[in-house]
Amino acid sequence: MHHTLDDVITRSTELLRAKDLAGMSQLVADLPPADAARILERTDSAERAVLYRLLPKDRALDVFEQFDASVRSELVNALRDDDVVTLFAELDPDDRVELVDELPSNVAHRLMQGLSRTERELTAPMLGYAKGSVGRRMSPEYVRVHPTTTADQALAQVRAIGAGAESVYLLPITDDSRRLVGVATLADVATADPTTVVDNLSTSRPVVTADVSAEEAARSCLDHRSPAVVVVDSENRLIGILTIDQASRILEDAEDEDAARAGGTEPLRRPYLATPVLSIVRSRVVWLLVLALSAILTVQVLEIFEHALAAVVTLALFIPLLTGTGGNTGSQAATTVTRALAVGDVRPRDIGAVLFREIRVGATMGAMRGTLGFVIAGLVYDWHLGLVIGSTLLAICTLAATVGGAMPLLAKKIGVDPAVFSTPFISTFCDATGLIVYFAIAKLVLGV
Amino acid sequence: MHHTLDDVITRSTELLRAKDLAGMSQLVADLPPADAARILERTDSAERAVLYRLLPKDRALDVFEQFDASVRSELVNALRDDDVVTLFAELDPDDRVELVDELPSNVAHRLMQGLSRTERELTAPMLGYAKGSVGRRMSPEYVRVHPTTTADQALAQVRAIGAGAESVYLLPITDDSRRLVGVATLADVATADPTTVVDNLSTSRPVVTADVSAEEAARSCLDHRSPAVVVVDSENRLIGILTIDQASRILEDAEDEDAARAGGTEPLRRPYLATPVLSIVRSRVVWLLVLALSAILTVQVLEIFEHALAAVVTLALFIPLLTGTGGNTGSQAATTVTRALAVGDVRPRDIGAVLFREIRVGATMGAMRGTLGFVIAGLVYDWHLGLVIGSTLLAICTLAATVGGAMPLLAKKIGVDPAVFSTPFISTFCDATGLIVYFAIAKLVLGV
Repeated sequence: MHHTLDDVITRSTELLRAKDLAGMSQLVADLPPADAARILERTDSAERAVLYRLLPKDRALDVFEQFDASVRSELVNALRDDDVVTLFAELDPDDRVELVDELPSNVAHRLMQGLSRTERELTAPMLGYAKGSVGRRMSPEYVRVHPTTTADQALAQVRAIGAGAESVYLLPITDDSRRLVGVATLADVATADPTTVVDNLSTSRPVVTADVSAEEAARSCLDHRSPAVVVVDSENRLIGILTIDQASRILEDAEDEDAARAGGTEPLRRPYLATPVLSIVRSRVVWLLVLALSAILTVQVLEIFEHALAAVVTLALFIPLLTGTGGNTGSQAATTVTRALAVGDVRPRDIGAVLFREIRVGATMGAMRGTLGFVIAGLVYDWHLGLVIGSTLLAICTLAATVGGAMPLLAKKIGVDPAVFSTPFISTFCDATGLIVYFAIAKLVLGV
Repeated sequence: MHHTLDDVITRSTELLRAKDLAGMSQLVADLPPADAARILERTDSAERAVLYRLLPKDRALDVFEQFDASVRSELVNALRDDDVVTLFAELDPDDRVELVDELPSNVAHRLMQGLSRTERELTAPMLGYAKGSVGRRMSPEYVRVHPTTTADQALAQVRAIGAGAESVYLLPITDDSRRLVGVATLADVATADPTTVVDNLSTSRPVVTADVSAEEAARSCLDHRSPAVVVVDSENRLIGILTIDQASRILEDAEDEDAARAGGTEPLRRPYLATPVLSIVRSRVVWLLVLALSAILTVQVLEIFEHALAAVVTLALFIPLLTGTGGNTGSQAATTVTRALAVGDVRPRDIGAVLFREIRVGATMGAMRGTLGFVIAGLVYDWHLGLVIGSTLLAICTLAATVGGAMPLLAKKIGVDPAVFSTPFISTFCDATGLIVYFAIAKLVLGV
């Protein structure tokens, strides 16, 4: 029952190098779907299509559902048309919608037309919700029960319809007009006395409307440790559920995006080793413009002070130290506040409290670093230079922490992804303003 | 059923400002546990203890389980001794172990002694596993079934023991000597024909040994979209399960840590607004030493080239641009590779493939930026300087991407958290080496 994925990856690398596709297909066929998908994602697009078609029919779908979104659309492009039509019909509605979002609209349209009426009627309404909303990511298949149903009857209902429902771990309770009146978990139903009415088993579980963002709904599911969140329309009528495994996948994607943006790249949306070099370049080159701006700004600022630099060349020695400190302090503050925003610990309207905090944090760190800088530069060079370095560090740290802490909140307020104001952006800002502060203080103290 | 947490937070802020603890306690009592915990986490430690004791008895425990780890230990310190003893006895074993990890060892020891024998026997073995292993975070309460049990009998067993088990969504199947022979999901059992034997319902689900890291086990649970992972000892004997909501909490904490480290801070381990300013300073000041090293390195490197700087002051203008580009390129590569490592897309032994990729990515970006730098510096200043800037950009980008991509893998190989080699570390390295490359090229081209 145990097998280490690591060994399997090593074995598959050998097989691929030997071009042994038959061996590969046998290796993959025996793996759990998640591991099979992981292995196939490491192969190139042509090999992947061949190996996928060699999978046993009943396992292919499970493996497909485990692929990253962009790998799915790549695979669909490489498969034969009739294979795609069958695959599309077999997918769960939420996976189907995700695939539609990746495909060219004419292909998506043709595939939708090819669906049976029942499946089309399940899928089409989801496509009506905005991209990124939970309405587009939920599952429209569930088992709903009437408030007067007993636990035993509910279990019978699960048994009867269960196989078709995405998840049966949460049973929405609805009245005759499909309005949500409560929620029971399968665990509570299964452990209750069989004659208990489900209305008495109803517990407080998260409910969201379909226009709420998928990320917010997913976080609410995990925050409340619920097997699913219930999705309703504006009139409180049940339209779907978002299960905890869908929720954790949504959050995983969001973390991916945040982590990438914080590091100044766009998310790859597919496994690193399966991403072409040029796509990686493209994901990182978005910041080229910001860097060009940085170039112009910092060079221009320094040009203004070229005279002072020529007079006291020693001033140049501290430039990387000072800009580095500013950039680091700013990105530390931005990281903390961005994360606090993402998990809901702060809201944009808390900006006053955040600024007050960051000013104190920045000033404290600035005082520590400034003292250190004053002493070292004073001992090695002279105390006037020490004073310049020390007070510049104090000023830069305070400024950078305040700006770094405020930026994610301002971004959120104007409706931009807070993670966009990431390291490159903040360092650019801190570089330029830090240099101005530096030379202003140097002029004042040294009179250059 | 709907209420927006945002409104509740605003209302609670007003109540706290008016020191209306009675109003606050009423507000909190009606909220779902996760939201109540969120509100209480925003209050100060003394208010929180009072409000917590005012909670209805049956809800207090649910709220406690939703607190962040450090808030829990703070609360335990603020509660009366007998309250703590009762609370400790009521906690689930995994929450109990988490609390023990936060408390001073004499307090933890006394609390463990106060447990009933049954509860102590459930908890004590978990404390024997290493910190960070799944053995310490799993739940030792579950419903296990015999291979010959029918679906109907299994449901009856769930009903009989269910209330005490942490999760009944996954039922481990064991033989007479408690060895794991399979796993069935509650969904499969509930939807199966009542007479089906559970052995026939057994599906492939992730299994880990107790010494595996909690993070790895949690990721395996979510990757396989399983309601839980089964934990066994080295002889394949069942000892616990890790449920998907425990798993997602573990991953959430790990993401927190990674996001914080990537930004050059330590994770706060409690909500931002509830963290004292000095704790925030402490979480960021860990990098003070790295920055001091950076200071010494960059200042020293520039001192070596002070003569060249004095001869051509214009060279100083480009220092922030060049070190900034190096730092950004390096942290982009590190971010991508760290993330790929975390989700299992690359392994330390893939270092060859990663280096080959990053050299090409770095060289491509370096060629683009270098050309731009060559043209702009050439037009504005002169073509010799353009050549220096252009080729330095090419060299720095290639170097930074390669080093940034390799560092997380090397860290993992020597058993260090890859996220430790974060922005501050890589910028320090890139700053110093970038400057050496810059002046070496300048000497060669300009002959200074």
